[in-house]
Amino acid sequence: MTLKIAHLGPTGTYTEAAALAYARAELVDIEISLQPYPTIAGTIAAVASGEVTLAIVPVENSIEGGVTMTADTIWQIAAPIQIQQAIVLPIHHALISVATSLSEIKTVYSHPQALSQCQDWLQQHLPQAVRVADSSTTAALTTLAANPQTAAISSVRAANLYNLPVLIQPINDRPDNQTKFWAIGLQPALLGNCTSIAFSLRSNAPGGLMTALGFFADRSLNLSRIESRPSKRSLGDYLFFIDIETDGNNCPALKSALADLDAYAETVKNFGSYYTNTIAISS
Amino acid sequence: MTLKIAHLGPTGTYTEAAALAYARAELVDIEISLQPYPTIAGTIAAVASGEVTLAIVPVENSIEGGVTMTADTIWQIAAPIQIQQAIVLPIHHALISVATSLSEIKTVYSHPQALSQCQDWLQQHLPQAVRVADSSTTAALTTLAANPQTAAISSVRAANLYNLPVLIQPINDRPDNQTKFWAIGLQPALLGNCTSIAFSLRSNAPGGLMTALGFFADRSLNLSRIESRPSKRSLGDYLFFIDIETDGNNCPALKSALADLDAYAETVKNFGSYYTNTIAISS
Repeated sequence: MTLKIAHLGPTGTYTEAAALAYARAELVDIEISLQPYPTIAGTIAAVASGEVTLAIVPVENSIEGGVTMTADTIWQIAAPIQIQQAIVLPIHHALISVATSLSEIKTVYSHPQALSQCQDWLQQHLPQAVRVADSSTTAALTTLAANPQTAAISSVRAANLYNLPVLIQPINDRPDNQTKFWAIGLQPALLGNCTSIAFSLRSNAPGGLMTALGFFADRSLNLSRIESRPSKRSLGDYLFFIDIETDGNNCPALKSALADLDAYAETVKNFGSYYTNTIAISS
Repeated sequence: MTLKIAHLGPTGTYTEAAALAYARAELVDIEISLQPYPTIAGTIAAVASGEVTLAIVPVENSIEGGVTMTADTIWQIAAPIQIQQAIVLPIHHALISVATSLSEIKTVYSHPQALSQCQDWLQQHLPQAVRVADSSTTAALTTLAANPQTAAISSVRAANLYNLPVLIQPINDRPDNQTKFWAIGLQPALLGNCTSIAFSLRSNAPGGLMTALGFFADRSLNLSRIESRPSKRSLGDYLFFIDIETDGNNCPALKSALADLDAYAETVKNFGSYYTNTIAISS
């Protein structure tokens, strides 16, 4: 049976590259089918509805920070999303265009995160160009060939897939640009050395966040990441996404901390325990 | 002498509305001159260089969360930025266009935060329109009159300033949309009931964040906000922005907690103590 994996499309996105890296490492003898979706929220909904078994979603970038659509969607969706693995991918952006010089280019298309990751380069080299926020880094690639006044920021891999020339690369402002993705599904993951949860607090109680974090600190459990997101109920009311480090085994301290948090918090979502695969070279 | 206040321009932005609200409340007998800048970073740099006395900067929105450019810039800039006041403004977005029907519109311009705050409405009512991320909600307003195929998301106030028709409003996905701004300068602020700081930790030490937050918890100081941002050094290495609640007086517990944090953290930036002014109706 073919295992379906959803990713942000169209073909050629960094998320698709992360999906291929995940499949190569983890699904060696399994036939897979990559399924592009127009939005990150759409890939998560496809997991929830059972249309696909897995989705690959971007979580955070080393320069631009958290991917808010991923966090907001996995919090809001009713299905019990479980993380199978984190995949860390190096990101090298290329300027793709059939223009023969930068001065011809009037419009640059890409995903907002990619535009932000190249903002200094764009300011310096393409100050005249309008920046258009697209749904993905590859959404504009089918229209570029017809118009030398347009360019897109995407990967060299995407340029090759669409048979388009790379005008200049890399153009990301920082060379050590990395994005972390999650492979998510509905089945509980295997054990791992990182556990990701999200929680909201009752009526934003004073001291509430410190009380909640204390359940982990008191048991010497380290938090490797904390991200707050608006609850969207009122300004100053937050959700918290945290990653907890463990030794990779079935951790009694974590179970006990989570039991305390369950009793204290308003809502807790446990996205499971997983390992991280850091990819050396982008495909 | 005229007091210069920088804000994201061109004229008509929500940041300018917050600047006017601040001036009305706090600078009653002082002649002011509003100075529009093309970027948020530019307004902060203008404070640092002394070009202006104050800048008004967006900090967080109740739906979309933190404004990353503000956080990243006040962390990176060498000048000792001090917050004078927080201003909370209700945000009611309007679709501005000379089109006679929605179906004519092919392109919608706005700031990325405003596009995100109206994303469900746009998906439902303007699925055919390309969304262009502009440097502000008002950057496109001078070009709209000439092209009925274009629209912008901005305020009714901005539509009036540019003598443009409002096609429909409000279009924000949630009616209780609010944005918090800071008035910042170089002089220490008066006392306040909220203190904002940012800090980085030495080599992302295990347990480092909990140790740092513990300095406040141990003294019963409540944190009303915590936001992490990538340090941009490596994935998983963060800065933390926190707001600490106090009783509004010169708080000895806060001073003692900050002394502990100064000794423990790698770098601490103290943006000062200030009060919040919540505006009931947007100007």
